[in-house]
Amino acid sequence: MLRTHTCGELNASFDGHEVTLCGWVQTTRDFGKFIFVDVRDRFGITQIAVDAESNPEAYAIARQLGREFVVQAKGQVKRRSNPNPNIPTGEVEVIPQSLSILNTSEVPPFKIENETDGLEELRMQYRYLDIRRPAIASNLVLRAQMVKAVREYLDANGFLEIETPNLIKSTPEGARDFLVPSRLQPGSFYALPQSPQILKQLLMVAGMDRYYQIVKCYRDEDFRGDRQPEFTQIDCEMSFVEQEDILQMFEGMTKSVFKKIGNIDLPDFRRITYREAIEKYGTDKPDLRFEMEMVDLSGVIHEQLSVKTEPFVVFKKVLESKGLVTAIKAPKASGWTRKDLDSLTDFVKAPHRGATGLIWVRYAEDGTLKSSVDKFFSEEDLKEWARAVQAEPGDMAFLLAGEVAQTRKVAGDLRLELGTRLGLRQAGKWSLLWVVDFPMFETDPETGELIFVHHPFVSPHPEDIHLLDSRPEQARALCYDMVMNGNEIVSGSVRIHRKDVQDKIFGILGLSEEEKQNKFGFLLNAFKYGAPPHAGCAFGLDRWVMLMAGGESIRDVIAFPKNSSGRDLMMDAPAPVPDKALAEVGVQVRAALS
Amino acid sequence: MLRTHTCGELNASFDGHEVTLCGWVQTTRDFGKFIFVDVRDRFGITQIAVDAESNPEAYAIARQLGREFVVQAKGQVKRRSNPNPNIPTGEVEVIPQSLSILNTSEVPPFKIENETDGLEELRMQYRYLDIRRPAIASNLVLRAQMVKAVREYLDANGFLEIETPNLIKSTPEGARDFLVPSRLQPGSFYALPQSPQILKQLLMVAGMDRYYQIVKCYRDEDFRGDRQPEFTQIDCEMSFVEQEDILQMFEGMTKSVFKKIGNIDLPDFRRITYREAIEKYGTDKPDLRFEMEMVDLSGVIHEQLSVKTEPFVVFKKVLESKGLVTAIKAPKASGWTRKDLDSLTDFVKAPHRGATGLIWVRYAEDGTLKSSVDKFFSEEDLKEWARAVQAEPGDMAFLLAGEVAQTRKVAGDLRLELGTRLGLRQAGKWSLLWVVDFPMFETDPETGELIFVHHPFVSPHPEDIHLLDSRPEQARALCYDMVMNGNEIVSGSVRIHRKDVQDKIFGILGLSEEEKQNKFGFLLNAFKYGAPPHAGCAFGLDRWVMLMAGGESIRDVIAFPKNSSGRDLMMDAPAPVPDKALAEVGVQVRAALS
Repeated sequence: MLRTHTCGELNASFDGHEVTLCGWVQTTRDFGKFIFVDVRDRFGITQIAVDAESNPEAYAIARQLGREFVVQAKGQVKRRSNPNPNIPTGEVEVIPQSLSILNTSEVPPFKIENETDGLEELRMQYRYLDIRRPAIASNLVLRAQMVKAVREYLDANGFLEIETPNLIKSTPEGARDFLVPSRLQPGSFYALPQSPQILKQLLMVAGMDRYYQIVKCYRDEDFRGDRQPEFTQIDCEMSFVEQEDILQMFEGMTKSVFKKIGNIDLPDFRRITYREAIEKYGTDKPDLRFEMEMVDLSGVIHEQLSVKTEPFVVFKKVLESKGLVTAIKAPKASGWTRKDLDSLTDFVKAPHRGATGLIWVRYAEDGTLKSSVDKFFSEEDLKEWARAVQAEPGDMAFLLAGEVAQTRKVAGDLRLELGTRLGLRQAGKWSLLWVVDFPMFETDPETGELIFVHHPFVSPHPEDIHLLDSRPEQARALCYDMVMNGNEIVSGSVRIHRKDVQDKIFGILGLSEEEKQNKFGFLLNAFKYGAPPHAGCAFGLDRWVMLMAGGESIRDVIAFPKNSSGRDLMMDAPAPVPDKALAEVGVQVRAALS
Repeated sequence: MLRTHTCGELNASFDGHEVTLCGWVQTTRDFGKFIFVDVRDRFGITQIAVDAESNPEAYAIARQLGREFVVQAKGQVKRRSNPNPNIPTGEVEVIPQSLSILNTSEVPPFKIENETDGLEELRMQYRYLDIRRPAIASNLVLRAQMVKAVREYLDANGFLEIETPNLIKSTPEGARDFLVPSRLQPGSFYALPQSPQILKQLLMVAGMDRYYQIVKCYRDEDFRGDRQPEFTQIDCEMSFVEQEDILQMFEGMTKSVFKKIGNIDLPDFRRITYREAIEKYGTDKPDLRFEMEMVDLSGVIHEQLSVKTEPFVVFKKVLESKGLVTAIKAPKASGWTRKDLDSLTDFVKAPHRGATGLIWVRYAEDGTLKSSVDKFFSEEDLKEWARAVQAEPGDMAFLLAGEVAQTRKVAGDLRLELGTRLGLRQAGKWSLLWVVDFPMFETDPETGELIFVHHPFVSPHPEDIHLLDSRPEQARALCYDMVMNGNEIVSGSVRIHRKDVQDKIFGILGLSEEEKQNKFGFLLNAFKYGAPPHAGCAFGLDRWVMLMAGGESIRDVIAFPKNSSGRDLMMDAPAPVPDKALAEVGVQVRAALS
């Protein structure tokens, strides 16, 4: 071993010890006859104090050092005369008997500090330097610790870690597959798994009972937002269980990780139905670090309009076309300026949201009410709205009106924006909940046909079996998501294990026998041989780590991430390959592109 | 939870308890008024005793049960009047209050028992049934336990589990890459990693200090023997260490896993040099569960021939062309028949070995010596050979002659075959050793040029630096393998961390600046910025588990393996995909093949 200690472990208790440290030069400070060298590794920084008089050789070497040189220092630990209370090693320094350069370094292209001058593209190109920054290094350490805590919990609960293959069959389902040409069978292709969904169900058919895997999954999607073409899932499945067992098991796991990693005791998770989430928060992944429920004012407004001679035409039209008027309160926001309100109006009117406008009601501290629709509504009307959203003097209320689903969605976005502006969404504050009772099917907006919401193996809710024939669109599924601070972290379901139920669902989806066989043949075949009742879920590891790290992007918690167009800037991948390599695997680049 | 206990945990201490079990019907035995149902899960088998009189409903259901039906039985645990001492649950049975069928099963295509009637192809097609056989299920459990023990050791030793990407850049180096067409950059390709070698070295440059990952690797090779296109590596790397540290650390890990899994205390591993391994055992991965070293008889034979009037021409020619005569003893084998000896001759003459013949010497119990070359050698000559290989009355000796390298190789194969025939290679007996001091380079048999033995980042042996300019073919590398019962289980090396050394090695390999940049550019670039001294290794997990399981094929320890032509028979992959999917990723099947 080239060192006896790391750069993060020496303190006053080591006073007088002989040690050898290795690491990178963070800084050198030259005080003439003294040079202080701060040596860094991923455990910390230790000061090496080099004295020209007592050790001229070490001094000569210290003078040559540049940023990021790799050095080895052997010497004695000594208490500092001026301790640095800001770092754990700040009480001591090392007086080197010998100092040697293990490797030199060119001047790095950006500062290796948390506050760096490197833009993201440059940092990604030199990711191996970016990772040296404690901000990134500590994310990778956190990730490893979380994964360890996850495994400890699952191992203790009888789960077996089982690897499933990554070169599998392409199924024309869900997102787009990454394809891998086969050399031994030219013209044939493997696919990289979008998830081990079918394989883990087969492991249950195989009697493996409790399975987990922390596994890479692959989706060739266009990169909306913060996505990666390869991402990591904590993938789990259990046999002989019901939905409640899964919720308990994985709520338990989440609590256990929070406790081990952050010493945080999470309370029992709130559970809300999909319908309640949509109606109250306009989304199936509500951020409940703050309440601020949406309130349906349609009834109240309908009453008010009915007695007006000149009713507000926007609301009138909305209500006539069975739309929704919804309201939300912004507590203690009555001081917001015209500019604040205009920017909120712009927010809801942004093209991807598409609201036609935003109505505000200011409930001043003195108890008076003013609104952007004073022309149409009396103060008494406004007071009625305020009562509905439980607004009090000092609050604001906002109203949105329009088609039901879209209005809820915009109001959900508005709720988050208000929460942000009001400082109600701090990092370090946690809201975890289960959303349950998702619908089984939804209508494809393009074809008008029924399609499944999650995947075709989700079990219908036992109370809704009778709806499958008559009103399938109203049937609920045994399907659940865990939501963490407004992010879907876990998704799962009870699976169908009986062939007759599976056949019924495929029938509703209008799949022919041939399509069924082609898409899901080997799973359906397996279901003939005694599939046990089973259920499971998958955690999005990258996002969970990101939230625990208080980060903004999953790229910050992945060692070598790809950029938003799927490129690895460090390796410069993907890249062209010689035609010879393509010929070997029986493919060629399409003519128009070659 | 649909059960209170597994089918493997009830014993006499549960007498009288109310329990609920779930599992698969292994057998039903119908004794008229009684039916005994053996219910199986991966934890064991428990007998359910159904009595027509006391529970006619359960009896009626028990009569309908077929093999592999999934059942749930609720009832009371009772001591059996006839205990079965062969299974852990054999003291008890469950008297069901209720018995229900959770799922039916068609008759499985082969017996779900360790001794099955299913041929491998059929079992692979129905792998989910094959895994139900305890022989396979227990392998997957063993694998999970080993992986857990590995992680515990590495976590305890400060290693961080870090994921590296699987969609990387293709490098025209080593084995063939699996390629993945990029849709967002048509005409460009990702490659699946053959190993995370470069990425883990970059993690050391990044200061991560100690890294591990249990990771899938991909090689598109022709499937010689027992290989899989995707396989699993325990991949490790450490900074600020020397070769000795790696050997200690991973010898420690191996011992720790043997202890935890099999309660086996391994002795300290023997270390031998590559040269010694080749000379004594004819291979760089000797099985040292038995000794039987090869002995070079060239000198002895040379002496003997020099005094003959009619020297044995085969040996004469071999010695004249600087070949080798080597001998090996088969202890207690003097009773082998002519047929035994003929089959050994066939063994060494097999086309892929290519020996021209095999000479045997029988040292009879009565002290007389006979051989297949009695015409050319006296009994005194034979006695001299016997002395050289330390043969005694009752032993056999075998001689092979020919070109040095090939003769050693064949003799190494013969040694293993003799060991097998003599019963010296039992499962459950362990030989672990390190082979060190591999050569740095070898000569490409096709081009005659020097090529690297492992990879171009292996550090030369410090004692041999002076040879790099003059006689590079004699230089040793800081490279090491761990060999377990004749299988290479671990391979690793100290890496080059200094750019000047790396440049020298590339120079010897005759790489141009352009080739270097194209093949290894991003690693060489990283080495400019302070790479630490580092070293590492990788374990072949599949093979290690196979050896621990006492198995013969790595397919037995992989949940869903591929066959020898790279096909997954269960999923029927690889398979053709619609041309539309290919068009999206910018490729097409080559005309001749489409």
